[in-house]
Amino acid sequence: VSVRFRVELAPGAPRGHEVVVGRGLERELTELLRELAPSGLFVVSDRNVAGLHLPALEAALREGGFAAAPACVLEPGEGSKSPAALVRLWEALLAAGLDRGGVVLALGGGVVGDVAGFAAATWLRGVRVVHLPTTLLAMIDSALGGKTALDLGGAKNQVGAFHPPAGLVADLERLCTLPARERAAGLGEAWKTALLAGEPLLSRAEASAAGARAGDLDALAPLVEGCLRHKAAVVAADERDERGLRALLNLGHTVGHALEAARPALLHGEAVAIGVHVALRLSERLGRAEPGFVPRALTLGHALGLTLAPDRPLELDELRPWLARDKKRGAAGLQWVLPRGPGRAELATADEASVQGALLDVLLRSGAARPR
Amino acid sequence: VSVRFRVELAPGAPRGHEVVVGRGLERELTELLRELAPSGLFVVSDRNVAGLHLPALEAALREGGFAAAPACVLEPGEGSKSPAALVRLWEALLAAGLDRGGVVLALGGGVVGDVAGFAAATWLRGVRVVHLPTTLLAMIDSALGGKTALDLGGAKNQVGAFHPPAGLVADLERLCTLPARERAAGLGEAWKTALLAGEPLLSRAEASAAGARAGDLDALAPLVEGCLRHKAAVVAADERDERGLRALLNLGHTVGHALEAARPALLHGEAVAIGVHVALRLSERLGRAEPGFVPRALTLGHALGLTLAPDRPLELDELRPWLARDKKRGAAGLQWVLPRGPGRAELATADEASVQGALLDVLLRSGAARPR
Repeated sequence: VSVRFRVELAPGAPRGHEVVVGRGLERELTELLRELAPSGLFVVSDRNVAGLHLPALEAALREGGFAAAPACVLEPGEGSKSPAALVRLWEALLAAGLDRGGVVLALGGGVVGDVAGFAAATWLRGVRVVHLPTTLLAMIDSALGGKTALDLGGAKNQVGAFHPPAGLVADLERLCTLPARERAAGLGEAWKTALLAGEPLLSRAEASAAGARAGDLDALAPLVEGCLRHKAAVVAADERDERGLRALLNLGHTVGHALEAARPALLHGEAVAIGVHVALRLSERLGRAEPGFVPRALTLGHALGLTLAPDRPLELDELRPWLARDKKRGAAGLQWVLPRGPGRAELATADEASVQGALLDVLLRSGAARPR
Repeated sequence: VSVRFRVELAPGAPRGHEVVVGRGLERELTELLRELAPSGLFVVSDRNVAGLHLPALEAALREGGFAAAPACVLEPGEGSKSPAALVRLWEALLAAGLDRGGVVLALGGGVVGDVAGFAAATWLRGVRVVHLPTTLLAMIDSALGGKTALDLGGAKNQVGAFHPPAGLVADLERLCTLPARERAAGLGEAWKTALLAGEPLLSRAEASAAGARAGDLDALAPLVEGCLRHKAAVVAADERDERGLRALLNLGHTVGHALEAARPALLHGEAVAIGVHVALRLSERLGRAEPGFVPRALTLGHALGLTLAPDRPLELDELRPWLARDKKRGAAGLQWVLPRGPGRAELATADEASVQGALLDVLLRSGAARPR
């Protein structure tokens, strides 16, 4: 079973995204590629993912009638979101002779998608990329929307490009090999999206939380599809993050990115879940959240099995230097995404005392916080 | 005296280019910057140019009321169109803390413009750049239109981005310090543009050729303005090089890029002039040029003081591997820009015998070819 839809971008944008969600999508992938009629293919992956999924991808391409595609296999982990990895990729693209009609296939999680997407954005000033996410996080969030990035000097996503993919094939079967911790981290991003999307996705997430938490692909499929449709709608309305709509998708990311820097052992989705928790507390402190919303949100977070506080308490001073480097800061200080109700959030600055209070609410606890 | 005009890009494109051409434009520059209201400035230059022009720029910014701008000074020369130089620039931007409201000032020739433009295109996924070209080549051609690029493994412009500048201030006074050889090379690009633009620029170029060749700024000013206006019109109609209009600006560049690779001592404009000569001969051999056009074009080339053949004969085998890497090659082989008449050119493939004949016409001669 698969669902296919198209993300149409604003006039002037080079192209939309073709999105396919489902289970066992080898044929859908090769069909999509035949429509794109690439002059050549080039696969980017990482060592862990390549061992699990590259042979199956190569077999699917062969059966679909495509010539063997050269592959560049990165080291696993956030360290590959680096200029050095990008240059290695560029050099592999040069050696492969991928021309302007070529297509890059990004087989992996968020890191592979970010680096492969940035390489595709800049190779010959832009060739097409098709994302084949292998993590829940990448399926739900990072593979759609065209944001690509590298880290620099420990600061997240400092350089990058907007480069909408030509396609995204979210094959849930690829999640069978995903470690439970990474699946749980991906649900952090799903939680964020469900809060931002509101109904019907929020109720759907509540109904399927137990199944999703257990890794049941049939429970995950509608959640992934709903998250992708929400993100697609936002990206279509604000592709280049200029209208404040797309910025709302950063809910939880200001604190999340700082946490990732201060606690490198945290996964992105884990850090985002804690960041969403801080944003909910901040919204509550500022009186912006409608009655009942924060408890409902926290109940869903727990039902999804999320860990909503760091594993050991964290001093504010550990976070401050990273918050100060957030690239969304403006002249008026940090911009916070404040969730107000189902499907309602706003961008706002916040006074220092409320921010500190919200951070302390969350960061001084250890382990999972209980809803109040 | 200065002329200011605006390049409007297609709907969906982030912004147009403000272009100012004239002599002594310190005040026009700071006015433009005030309109852009940057949260910070960051200068990119190279060691040669910085010695000649950075103090004057800093003084102008100071007088205009801007805070001191950090500068990153690259090594002069094509070698700085490298991933290593880009990473150095990114790290300098990180150290300077340039935020999304910042503006990069690219003070230099084509290399500085390309690297600074690419860094600006990718820093925080895109900040504004204002080009302050110091060479005739950059004024006429490379600073306008938003193409940015790096070389890779000896192949030209393999990676890059489309990133229209927020402004271009072509102050002809900066050409006073330009070596005569570089000025002459810049006229190679002016020749190309005049042939593509047709009337009235072609006649204007013929009338001012002697003055332009001698470096008379009053003769150069209308030529620079005319070339910029032509390029602006082409870029406005085909920003992302998708309609075959902008591709015509590559007249002479297929052979030019191969020559630059095979004869690294050649300047870009020198190689392009020889490439245009090859294209004229090819057009003639294929019967595409209208009667009288090729002799007229060559007469103008000589009047501008261009050297239309390599300084010593060149074997075709020296060129072939570089032609084979041209990134404009498609399934049907190399695409040539064939000049047909004033303001008329077309993209076409050509049979091997005609290409070889045209190359031999030009490359086996040494020194300046005479018009037939």
